[in-house]
Amino acid sequence: MTRFAIGVDLGGTNLRVAAVNENGGLFDQLSLETLVERGREDVVDRLTNGILELVNRWKDRYQLAGIGVGIPGILRVKDGILVASPNLPGWENFNVRAQIAKRLNSPFFLENDANAAALGEKWIGSGKDVKHLCFLTMGTGIGGGLIFDGKIWHGVSGMAAELGHVTLYPGGRLCACGNRGCLEAYAAASAVVKAAQEMLQEGRASEGLQKLAASGAKMTSAMIYDLAKAGDASAQEIFQMVGRALGMAIANFINIFDLDTFVLGGGAVEAWDAFEKSMFEEVALRSYVWRNDPREILKSSLGSQAGIFGAAYLAFSK
Amino acid sequence: MTRFAIGVDLGGTNLRVAAVNENGGLFDQLSLETLVERGREDVVDRLTNGILELVNRWKDRYQLAGIGVGIPGILRVKDGILVASPNLPGWENFNVRAQIAKRLNSPFFLENDANAAALGEKWIGSGKDVKHLCFLTMGTGIGGGLIFDGKIWHGVSGMAAELGHVTLYPGGRLCACGNRGCLEAYAAASAVVKAAQEMLQEGRASEGLQKLAASGAKMTSAMIYDLAKAGDASAQEIFQMVGRALGMAIANFINIFDLDTFVLGGGAVEAWDAFEKSMFEEVALRSYVWRNDPREILKSSLGSQAGIFGAAYLAFSK
Repeated sequence: MTRFAIGVDLGGTNLRVAAVNENGGLFDQLSLETLVERGREDVVDRLTNGILELVNRWKDRYQLAGIGVGIPGILRVKDGILVASPNLPGWENFNVRAQIAKRLNSPFFLENDANAAALGEKWIGSGKDVKHLCFLTMGTGIGGGLIFDGKIWHGVSGMAAELGHVTLYPGGRLCACGNRGCLEAYAAASAVVKAAQEMLQEGRASEGLQKLAASGAKMTSAMIYDLAKAGDASAQEIFQMVGRALGMAIANFINIFDLDTFVLGGGAVEAWDAFEKSMFEEVALRSYVWRNDPREILKSSLGSQAGIFGAAYLAFSK
Repeated sequence: MTRFAIGVDLGGTNLRVAAVNENGGLFDQLSLETLVERGREDVVDRLTNGILELVNRWKDRYQLAGIGVGIPGILRVKDGILVASPNLPGWENFNVRAQIAKRLNSPFFLENDANAAALGEKWIGSGKDVKHLCFLTMGTGIGGGLIFDGKIWHGVSGMAAELGHVTLYPGGRLCACGNRGCLEAYAAASAVVKAAQEMLQEGRASEGLQKLAASGAKMTSAMIYDLAKAGDASAQEIFQMVGRALGMAIANFINIFDLDTFVLGGGAVEAWDAFEKSMFEEVALRSYVWRNDPREILKSSLGSQAGIFGAAYLAFSK
């Protein structure tokens, strides 16, 4: 009997529940809104209802291998408590494991969403067949996942791989975590928008950036990337900043871990063309391990689905 | 029959060969000079002769478990080639494993010296009974060792844990590795001396530092530490710089690995009192993982012997 697993990716905006087979084939998916403003109990209700719906739909035809759930934020994996989560306001110190368990009545795996995405890439994505993997997801924030010897590295309290919060510029831009100069403050999608706003305030923005601001539309990193592609100097400068920050961080990770493969995912990786040159320059400048022995830095091949596949794989791999 | 192992620590100045029992008791030691100027073949001759001497001295009374050798520099553990080693000039791309093997005619373990020291601390030092450990050794340079699940983390090419070469100040002081702003350029013993020289050149050194320079003696980090202890403002400022750099690096390592124990070794750790305050301040400022859950940052308990014990333990643990 073919086996299947349920993979869940809970984000600040979208809640996705999918049924995946052992070959990495996704054959059913519910795409819901998170509606975090309705409160955390309500979100967990809809999350577990989604799981039960897909399980009931397929359990007679296929054998359920298990359920995996990826959630954003600092998760203490052992006890299932979400210590903090910028994308899920009001969920601080919420015992997510207990809340899901109460409603589900069957075992499941809980995981940080970036760790799950790293595992997805390792299973069927850009990190396929790689033993060790360092994954960075570039969205509103920057998440990280480390795969050592094929397994997620959790550290002692399950909070490992907060790779967006390595300090790159000691006196630099304030980060949501309270520190200054974190990678996240320079390379996340939100940092791209913030850098554009700073340029506008300082009166050194290009005509294109000024026009965009004057249009009244809410500025996004995608709009700024479009400008960069069209040759706008300010927009290009912003993505060079992104590339330098990424390159410096990756150089550090190479010197620290000596891994062979780095995968970049998340929405902001779409702007790869605009940041790759400065990223690779910075890695070469800052890592003599790299200069002795260059490594793979790859784009995610699963994109926004990496977390769902990784969550499902948690069930297949246990 | 009691077992013993030979542990070797090859440094730029000293070459030490020791006989150690399974309880971590060191019962015989040869303390030689490296005399690197005599050439690498000559050094390897004396190293292997020292091993053979101790083996012959004890092999009838105890059973030889094996031999471990720690060497400084970037070592590709798999093939035994020393890629680069600032402390062993002329050893670049030298096949150390083949050279030792040729003379020894018995199996041995070859390891980077900081990795060996980390393992020594894990065996019988400050990291005893700890599962994961991050070790920093502060000498002329800064070496690093990572112990995950009780074993040295080598990475894919054996060059992992180059922890002295994480970038802290992107446009900062030039490092021996070619990068700017590495931890090593701010927290190694050589960085302490360099910072004092910069203060003198810039005409902002204290009276104490000026007197020290005028004395004609070759300035060392230990002399500058003595000044700091005596209340000298410039010397204290220098060790605050050391503490900030260490704190920033350790905060990054906590956010990345989520380990519970960090051990600092090497000669410069003697100045602990002078840098600990700024180190702990910086860790708390820069790591929200730490703020949620503080970790142990400890001094090495084995000091300069850590590498010898770790090298011996390589033989006991295989």
